[in-house]
Amino acid sequence: MTGIQKAACIGGGVIGGAWAARFLLGGIDVSMYDPHPQAERIVGEVLANAERAYAMLTTAPLPPKGKLTFYKTIEEAVHGADWIQESVPERVDLKRGVLTQIDAAADPKALIGSSTSGIMPTELQRDMKHPERMFVAHPYNPVYLLPLAELVGGTKTSPETLELAKARLAPIGMIGVILKKEIEAFVGDRLLEAVWREGLWLIHDDICDTETLDDVIRYSFGIRWAQMGMFETYRIAGGEAGMRHFLAQFGPCLSWPWTKLTDVVDLDDALVDKIAGQSDAQSGARGIRELERIRDENLVGIMQALKGADGGKGWGAGKILGDFEKHLWAKGGAKKDHLDPSAPLRLIDTKVSPAWVDYNGHMTEHRYLQVFGDTSDALLRLIGVDFAYVEAGHSYYTVETHIRHLGEAKLGTKLYATLQLLSTDDKRIRFFTTIHDAETGDALATAEQLMLHVDSKAGKSVAAPADVLARLAPIAQAHAALPVPEGVGRSVGQKR
Amino acid sequence: MTGIQKAACIGGGVIGGAWAARFLLGGIDVSMYDPHPQAERIVGEVLANAERAYAMLTTAPLPPKGKLTFYKTIEEAVHGADWIQESVPERVDLKRGVLTQIDAAADPKALIGSSTSGIMPTELQRDMKHPERMFVAHPYNPVYLLPLAELVGGTKTSPETLELAKARLAPIGMIGVILKKEIEAFVGDRLLEAVWREGLWLIHDDICDTETLDDVIRYSFGIRWAQMGMFETYRIAGGEAGMRHFLAQFGPCLSWPWTKLTDVVDLDDALVDKIAGQSDAQSGARGIRELERIRDENLVGIMQALKGADGGKGWGAGKILGDFEKHLWAKGGAKKDHLDPSAPLRLIDTKVSPAWVDYNGHMTEHRYLQVFGDTSDALLRLIGVDFAYVEAGHSYYTVETHIRHLGEAKLGTKLYATLQLLSTDDKRIRFFTTIHDAETGDALATAEQLMLHVDSKAGKSVAAPADVLARLAPIAQAHAALPVPEGVGRSVGQKR
Repeated sequence: MTGIQKAACIGGGVIGGAWAARFLLGGIDVSMYDPHPQAERIVGEVLANAERAYAMLTTAPLPPKGKLTFYKTIEEAVHGADWIQESVPERVDLKRGVLTQIDAAADPKALIGSSTSGIMPTELQRDMKHPERMFVAHPYNPVYLLPLAELVGGTKTSPETLELAKARLAPIGMIGVILKKEIEAFVGDRLLEAVWREGLWLIHDDICDTETLDDVIRYSFGIRWAQMGMFETYRIAGGEAGMRHFLAQFGPCLSWPWTKLTDVVDLDDALVDKIAGQSDAQSGARGIRELERIRDENLVGIMQALKGADGGKGWGAGKILGDFEKHLWAKGGAKKDHLDPSAPLRLIDTKVSPAWVDYNGHMTEHRYLQVFGDTSDALLRLIGVDFAYVEAGHSYYTVETHIRHLGEAKLGTKLYATLQLLSTDDKRIRFFTTIHDAETGDALATAEQLMLHVDSKAGKSVAAPADVLARLAPIAQAHAALPVPEGVGRSVGQKR
Repeated sequence: MTGIQKAACIGGGVIGGAWAARFLLGGIDVSMYDPHPQAERIVGEVLANAERAYAMLTTAPLPPKGKLTFYKTIEEAVHGADWIQESVPERVDLKRGVLTQIDAAADPKALIGSSTSGIMPTELQRDMKHPERMFVAHPYNPVYLLPLAELVGGTKTSPETLELAKARLAPIGMIGVILKKEIEAFVGDRLLEAVWREGLWLIHDDICDTETLDDVIRYSFGIRWAQMGMFETYRIAGGEAGMRHFLAQFGPCLSWPWTKLTDVVDLDDALVDKIAGQSDAQSGARGIRELERIRDENLVGIMQALKGADGGKGWGAGKILGDFEKHLWAKGGAKKDHLDPSAPLRLIDTKVSPAWVDYNGHMTEHRYLQVFGDTSDALLRLIGVDFAYVEAGHSYYTVETHIRHLGEAKLGTKLYATLQLLSTDDKRIRFFTTIHDAETGDALATAEQLMLHVDSKAGKSVAAPADVLARLAPIAQAHAALPVPEGVGRSVGQKR
């Protein structure tokens, strides 16, 4: 990837500061110009947010951070830069003046992007000597995380400029999306402005409050749009008959009073053909069943990610999923009491999900431990160590684990896990778990584990209470009669 | 949670079938009426999709699946049901007729929900004898995954009905969001219709094609809206000054030609006060810095989930993240060559991310193994076993692992991992990894692991090539001079 060598940021608010953070964390030196007296503080805060986010985002090795230098003039700031990003306030005269000044001082080959949310590049490049290298690069907040930059050229912008800009953004984790024509507010902000205006009416007319409106978005189409946009989503809704069928079905809504957006396009044959054709080009390589599968896997992955959000409390649709699971456990946990203790307990039935596999479609190492952990959690619930028990301050902690990998699981492989107690006392449970391929019954992995009963506030091991031990005892007694599984007591690399 | 005891679905297409799937997988028997000759096949397909999705969604114990029965009349189908969901085609006369028939035959206390996307409940309940228990429960596709049902009452609906409906939806993993007033298309579809109409113009006017429009959505505000809606997002954009500041800043856009939505609300003081007050009620308990933190953690989690999507190939913003990481590894991998082999190699620096912690904010067991895995991956890259090497058909697989937990890591804890080689030959690498708290240097967990060099297509171990062994040798030689770490060679539960 052909990256940016040196960047200049003209204007350093939330947007300009976040552009600077993208460049700096990508190892690129940044020259900054912003006359605001608080500019250094504001940029510093955005950069701190960005560094925190990147530390969570990836364990890939970030290059040494670029050097940030503040300058007192635009001329000094743009010196030697091959990418200059303008992010000054949204006034056409101000922006045009700043861009003309940048143009005069910069290397004629340097790319000049504007962060404008809505002004057309033709307006902005009017007075430039080298307008062919000027374009709009419109990012989205938080710029250090969201990958999109809408790339829009004006009448004087060369097509090569947009392609070059796209290529230079990739090494800092951004995706340049090139628009065919300029229009006020481009594509993203036009869609957002439509929702915003509609939303203001809904609040104005007391149909709902802001929280309800936000909930409607994030529990429904918001999750969908995190992974597929509007047209691909509707293509799936059209079913095997595709986009043309969807348009035929939903075309009539355009004449219904479903929004205040009254200047409605004529959905004639030509437009239907155009949309159906573009949709085929976009998604036609995959059938509807495949798109459904990908969509569902994505939605599951997003909801599972949100289930762990806000320090494990869950957020948005992830919190709803967490509540649902608590309800299922509360209702279904008891059923497992009827397990037959005269054999290893079959405690977990599951399936290798898309989030569990690596590039080659194999279940990754740590997901085996996740299944082992789910299995020991199921054992704990069986003996009364449930959510309420843990909340009240005691729990069993795993202190030691020995895993053997004996086979491979792939995306979609059905699995089940069985658990055999090896030895127990009032503080300890040592047990042996096997993950099986549900089709063949083959053992794919085994774990020998040791758990200690702890007072989690005091942070030390204590004897488990009598009722827990009483539930554990009959299982331990029954399992004592079972043969010791092959592999128990091994150390790593030990000869058989 | 007070759940539904028996459900009836009148109309069984994609929407009605998915309602049935929600009920059935929640352990509720369903009576179905749909005169369509293909109804059983269509419902069966939706149910299969739903079961596949649920298997990935949760390991919580689903109750025994409910029983699905098809009936030839509405009267038979609604018999004994306490929730009846109407999902017939979107024609007011048809729907009103069906609902009136349901009303006449159903238990007067049964709740009757309509899946209509836009018709007002007052219109639908007009001819009912017991209209007080009728309402709109508008779900979103795929209904078996997306949790939202917009609950809307007509003039004759009792308020208790909506609260009761909300309570009954929770046990099947859905969230009922109650609107204050009815309006055509309710809230979600009004917002969607605004985007749809604006989007049709953009395609019509050749500003972009459908794929570009979809990319703009899913790389930017789509990801934002999966976790926070429009108003909470803009509250953050307003910064510490809050919603009022945002409205002052962006109010002027309402008069700009940024959408075809021309019937624009008057953003007067009364509306500004209303929005600012509702936003305070919604989000005021958290400061902007906290909202930023939660937003960024959510965005990271979503992008990471999408990075593993489509069988590990990545999807949408997750694919962009994956490409970025590959670029970072390609660029940064070489730097690690300068590591000093006279001590255990410090290969990973990371931080406990929100997706890694449990309800109590502690790093979950299997995430330790993830860090151990990242560390051994870093070792492999160091000796030339990188992405291209694995693609070409050879790799090292972990076959055995012994983990000890010695301390606790919490959300945000900075970690680093060091790796010491214990023994190597032409097929095997046995090594010992320690995860440290970066603040204190304390060991939080250790792993002894054994990797085997394999021909991944043949599925058997083979000797590693000379160049890989040549890179491994100097490290192995240097590490042979280090003391053997405490804990090496242990089996689980072994006395010290």
